[in-house]
Amino acid sequence: VDVEVEEKARKHVDNLTKPLGALGQLEEIVVRLAGMTGEVVPSIRQKATVVMCGDHGVTEEGVSAYPREVTGMMIHNFCRGKAAVNVLSKQFGSRVWVVDVGSRLEELPQGVIPCKIRAGTDNMAQGPAMTRKEAVEALWAGVDMACRMKEEGVQLLAVGEMGIGNTTAGTALTAALTEEPVAGLVGPGTGLDPEALERKRQVIERSLAVNQPDPKDPLDALAKVGGLEIAAMAGVALGASALRLPVVIDGWISTVAAWTAVRMAPRVQPYLIASHLSTEPGHRVLLDRLRLNPLIRADMRLGEGSGAVLAFPLLDGAVAAAEGMATFAELGL
Amino acid sequence: VDVEVEEKARKHVDNLTKPLGALGQLEEIVVRLAGMTGEVVPSIRQKATVVMCGDHGVTEEGVSAYPREVTGMMIHNFCRGKAAVNVLSKQFGSRVWVVDVGSRLEELPQGVIPCKIRAGTDNMAQGPAMTRKEAVEALWAGVDMACRMKEEGVQLLAVGEMGIGNTTAGTALTAALTEEPVAGLVGPGTGLDPEALERKRQVIERSLAVNQPDPKDPLDALAKVGGLEIAAMAGVALGASALRLPVVIDGWISTVAAWTAVRMAPRVQPYLIASHLSTEPGHRVLLDRLRLNPLIRADMRLGEGSGAVLAFPLLDGAVAAAEGMATFAELGL
Repeated sequence: VDVEVEEKARKHVDNLTKPLGALGQLEEIVVRLAGMTGEVVPSIRQKATVVMCGDHGVTEEGVSAYPREVTGMMIHNFCRGKAAVNVLSKQFGSRVWVVDVGSRLEELPQGVIPCKIRAGTDNMAQGPAMTRKEAVEALWAGVDMACRMKEEGVQLLAVGEMGIGNTTAGTALTAALTEEPVAGLVGPGTGLDPEALERKRQVIERSLAVNQPDPKDPLDALAKVGGLEIAAMAGVALGASALRLPVVIDGWISTVAAWTAVRMAPRVQPYLIASHLSTEPGHRVLLDRLRLNPLIRADMRLGEGSGAVLAFPLLDGAVAAAEGMATFAELGL
Repeated sequence: VDVEVEEKARKHVDNLTKPLGALGQLEEIVVRLAGMTGEVVPSIRQKATVVMCGDHGVTEEGVSAYPREVTGMMIHNFCRGKAAVNVLSKQFGSRVWVVDVGSRLEELPQGVIPCKIRAGTDNMAQGPAMTRKEAVEALWAGVDMACRMKEEGVQLLAVGEMGIGNTTAGTALTAALTEEPVAGLVGPGTGLDPEALERKRQVIERSLAVNQPDPKDPLDALAKVGGLEIAAMAGVALGASALRLPVVIDGWISTVAAWTAVRMAPRVQPYLIASHLSTEPGHRVLLDRLRLNPLIRADMRLGEGSGAVLAFPLLDGAVAAAEGMATFAELGL
């Protein structure tokens, strides 16, 4: 990021008609966006959310409150514009890109970008979710998507996902790379009761025991206990940061992906913006490691990128304030 | 509020294509707005912020980082549309009403609504800030403003303020009515250093000792250690709730006002929506007493209604989701 432009943005913000620092995180965000984009007053008008979709073999183990068919149903719902991420995106004037990197859908509805690496992962409780090569392909699908979005004029992007079973994979991946106990990371996802949550924890423990992912090799962990959509989101973060595009992360799964990307390439970190704090317990653990402050606390746990899109108007507001407010000098003080 | 409409809204929200409760506070807000407005899918298109302005005699004691003249300067800034609350309101398509209930400005710029009760309060460290009659008049100015906003088609309103010295008055009023120690409520306001903060604490203690406000009589406390703009904001909350208008509260001062209104009339409480959590320590104390969850955590401490306006798009998003999302039945599940 451009530290000189950051300094200029900081000076500009400090002169606006408000007590020093009184706009708090909004000021920080403007300064950070300036550094990312290289513009003192950054332009983030064109925004889009990429929703990476994939299925998970581990759903066989009964780790989700919903059947795995819901992934495909929701892809159809995205294409009809009737899911939360669509409605919020329409409300705030941003676009949605729906990408199939790994669902079990055979026929894709109109509007999905087809990038299927394979039709769902294997059951990680019995062996690796995918091969290292497949994980690399999914990463590249994400990098490629970031490039395509940049080419189409997107100035800031959000990452979201759909994949029944992916909080199980996301928790396993986080436990593998942080070496933190699963019990402190696992949560009810779409809504498990305590008994089912305990089963989910055991399935994650077993997946880690069976696969022995290397905590020092994010790609190894991604292949063995990750997911196709998680790898693709990590790829989006890698690509976007290389293209100097700010990346708004959503909840638990997209943060896992972003954090995996940071583990692969630390230069991703300064391009990440946190949107909200999910109720999934692992989310805060990773946000703390990424040193990010989420703007919204609404107890959301939906995914799709819904929380990230909800932060778009707050980012717009921050930039508008920097652009439109008077300075104290103009006021005669 | 209409409990039957709330129940209908809850049922509608529960059938949308998302795990039960996955939109968290957004769902709660839609249900609450339904109860307030009596509409299952509430309409909150027309939004406005009323900025109540007043001066404080206690500024003589050196309790603010800014000179008291800044109140008048900022009234001019509001009228030029160049303050944070203006810029954010323009960004999100809402209006700003600037009301002078007690500034020391003699000539008001075009665009201010003149409701001056008196030109600033007296120094509460030496005696009552105003008379009980004046406090009642300021309250009524607020009630009247809520009526005028309703007449002009406003469907949801936010309360904001401008008044150098008002975190001192707000803290004194809160301490008087909660009987909590001043030390746990007082904060740096516009930006005091630790030494000046200690002086501010002492001035507040002295004001309470000199005036002996009655903790059981909110009007007595409001007159003795409150402020004209604080009383007017309390009046807005009283008026709005009677008119079934949702009221979005901003930071520390507007929450003090809303809480004072609730102490006067408990029926105000269900009409309050919290926007953000300010860095002023007393804010959380009152939000907890009001059992409200602020949606935004951005370390803001500006006032004017700026944080409340920032929450407008989140409320719009919540309503849009309830209106535009498919149900699982439509998806065939």
